[in-house]
Amino acid sequence: MELTKQLAEAVLSADPLQDKRAVQMARNGLLDAAASALAAKEDEGIQKLMALVEQEGGAAQIPVMGKGKKVSRQSAAMLNGYLIHALDYDDVHSDVRGHPSAVIIPALLSQLTDGEIYGDRFLAAYITGVEVMARLGESIGKAHYERGWHNTGTLGAIAAVCAIGYLKQVSQEGLAKAIGFAGAQSAGMRKQFGSDMKPLQAGLAAKTAVWSMDLACSGFGGNDSVLDGALGFFSLYGDQELAESRLLEGYGSTWRIVAPGLWFKVYPFCSAAHHAADAILSLMKEHAALPEQVKQVDVIFPPGGDAALIERAPSNGEEGRFSVEYVIALAIFGQTLTLDAFTKKNIPTDMRTWMKRVSRGYDQTIEPHPDAVPKGRFTIVKLTLSDSTTISKRVDIPRGAPGFALSKEDIIQKLSSVTSASQAQQILQAVEEGNAAAYLKLLA
Amino acid sequence: MELTKQLAEAVLSADPLQDKRAVQMARNGLLDAAASALAAKEDEGIQKLMALVEQEGGAAQIPVMGKGKKVSRQSAAMLNGYLIHALDYDDVHSDVRGHPSAVIIPALLSQLTDGEIYGDRFLAAYITGVEVMARLGESIGKAHYERGWHNTGTLGAIAAVCAIGYLKQVSQEGLAKAIGFAGAQSAGMRKQFGSDMKPLQAGLAAKTAVWSMDLACSGFGGNDSVLDGALGFFSLYGDQELAESRLLEGYGSTWRIVAPGLWFKVYPFCSAAHHAADAILSLMKEHAALPEQVKQVDVIFPPGGDAALIERAPSNGEEGRFSVEYVIALAIFGQTLTLDAFTKKNIPTDMRTWMKRVSRGYDQTIEPHPDAVPKGRFTIVKLTLSDSTTISKRVDIPRGAPGFALSKEDIIQKLSSVTSASQAQQILQAVEEGNAAAYLKLLA
Repeated sequence: MELTKQLAEAVLSADPLQDKRAVQMARNGLLDAAASALAAKEDEGIQKLMALVEQEGGAAQIPVMGKGKKVSRQSAAMLNGYLIHALDYDDVHSDVRGHPSAVIIPALLSQLTDGEIYGDRFLAAYITGVEVMARLGESIGKAHYERGWHNTGTLGAIAAVCAIGYLKQVSQEGLAKAIGFAGAQSAGMRKQFGSDMKPLQAGLAAKTAVWSMDLACSGFGGNDSVLDGALGFFSLYGDQELAESRLLEGYGSTWRIVAPGLWFKVYPFCSAAHHAADAILSLMKEHAALPEQVKQVDVIFPPGGDAALIERAPSNGEEGRFSVEYVIALAIFGQTLTLDAFTKKNIPTDMRTWMKRVSRGYDQTIEPHPDAVPKGRFTIVKLTLSDSTTISKRVDIPRGAPGFALSKEDIIQKLSSVTSASQAQQILQAVEEGNAAAYLKLLA
Repeated sequence: MELTKQLAEAVLSADPLQDKRAVQMARNGLLDAAASALAAKEDEGIQKLMALVEQEGGAAQIPVMGKGKKVSRQSAAMLNGYLIHALDYDDVHSDVRGHPSAVIIPALLSQLTDGEIYGDRFLAAYITGVEVMARLGESIGKAHYERGWHNTGTLGAIAAVCAIGYLKQVSQEGLAKAIGFAGAQSAGMRKQFGSDMKPLQAGLAAKTAVWSMDLACSGFGGNDSVLDGALGFFSLYGDQELAESRLLEGYGSTWRIVAPGLWFKVYPFCSAAHHAADAILSLMKEHAALPEQVKQVDVIFPPGGDAALIERAPSNGEEGRFSVEYVIALAIFGQTLTLDAFTKKNIPTDMRTWMKRVSRGYDQTIEPHPDAVPKGRFTIVKLTLSDSTTISKRVDIPRGAPGFALSKEDIIQKLSSVTSASQAQQILQAVEEGNAAAYLKLLA
């Protein structure tokens, strides 16, 4: 049987609810996505997108998170996907090499126009979407991302269409065709990183999934083996041979939402600086040094481990999302590593001057921890104080990453930091009850 | 200067109206697109798409050709693009290796919400779109299509956004960003050939162009050098080095809508059978043989010249679009090679039996004509009659192809075959006057 049809069959016949850890992780994922979206509701990009959507018009079907307005199903998938990913505060997954929940969750929420309460099947559909996206990420090969594709965009539509297929229990033929429509519309470029278009690429993948399933359900004609053969999706975007051996291997026995698992972000900045953040906060807890007492800070990575941290002397908080120097300075100056520190607001001159005391170094002789996240990564933060004593801390697995997962309480705290405690509790209750419609309504 | 910005500058500073042949070709292109779309108005796929668009809702802004209904600008670009390409009756361009007008024209028509009569600037914008799409086709390299990309889809969005940029005279920075949004959403797979999704890929490229320009004009953040560098569009989809040498070489000195030029289809079937159609019609004019008088038909191609003609024993007219056997049988049975012969209706048994008399052959010793269209192609049709005399005809350039262009009268005749003579005359008048708004209104 062909790969596309096999994927459709595997998706429809598995039962993710058998794995209670997967179900719990899915609940946490819904809470974390809600927190990530609400954190972004004042974002400038979303205002522009909503104005464009309004200009096109459309039925008032599904709410845009935190915005008090309903838009059409496809537009809602796009806007909610954008919102969840807007601040890069949403979960990541190492197999995906991207952001699964920002695509899967909005695509599923846009199905909730029928008033049906899907219960735990909604969670199972979400687990399915993450599973397929992780498997696509592994099957497409490392070169895909390296060449410049944005995995969240290029893999998201097929994954989300599988999640919808599970939720709606469509036929195998229908799902195979929907995969084909999604595959033939898959896009997204890393060249757009650092612009509003990056999070929009997540939203567009979600929108494509909603539209592709609608096309399939309408009986519109399409190819049902788009993942197969020399002209197929994997040949075009990646590695056909790898996909044939990996895509479906052991599907349904374990769930990738659990292992390697979602990484929920504790801090609203680039994950490459999370290790250093944990380290400096831990050091500051033990030795509450003042800025003037710190002569020098050395931050040691494995070679290339700081590639994503492109800002060494940021001028505002938004640039500071990609600066380990700024993150360390905030901690030393006694400020919290929360959203308000990472806006367009200028960084005060004294802090910018102080940041020059931070140096980066690389050490390839240090053995990474076998469970390091990401693989091969570590960060050592070493403070040299004015009396020339030194204190240092090494972190291999940052808080929130698989292996050091956030507790549900941590995630509720993240949620409470962007909305009222009572709303956070209501959202939690909806998620515990598997009531996706109530969840969506609370986020409206 | 970077390629993306250079393209934007070249597009905005050229003046296509200086070339009167280009302007005339653009007028013919508008007439041909109208004929192609109206020919498809009873297509089943368009009904399904319109139902889906209705389900999403949207403002009544731009008419869907031949359907008596207005939809939102983006939806209209999609639906009109689908309609023009639905029957594969629309123009092709050898540099594009695909269908430029099915993307460029609908994207431009969706700009006509402001009541402005753009006059000849509309034609100039269309010439610009074809120009950019042809240059992208050449610059992306042959391997792009061969690997499985559908050029109409993958190159159409960037080309159409350049056409819109010219029409609306946006800023260079705005157009560079719009190219970036379009590039990062470019998609389309040949794997979808033979399904409704093929023409939809043309429509989706048009829709992406409309949306991308709207994003750019709204101030939404995006990268303005998406065509450049190791992670750029050409690196990902094609050949960066080729693009850097070819994309802008001599931009604005001659126009590719003229040379190599648009190929307008005389017949509503696969262009690979057009040479044989011309040959058999010419033979039948000279020797009106009856089916029973024809013992054998040999059709000789260069090796691989019939690759697209995948049906040797079609059972209905739709399959017959890809069958040289069926095309020859129609002519021998005295039927016209018009739309009604290429529907889902079954082919009569006597004709299906007769088709077995047609054999295909290949001859690599025959020298192709230097101006053959496509390059290297010829088709020889040889009839052996019941008295064993043989008559044969060779065609290198089919009617409608560049080098054997249709006259305006031919195109008006194509248009008149799908609508009333008086409407055809009105459409002609609107096109002659450069009144795009009137053209669109007549097609509503």
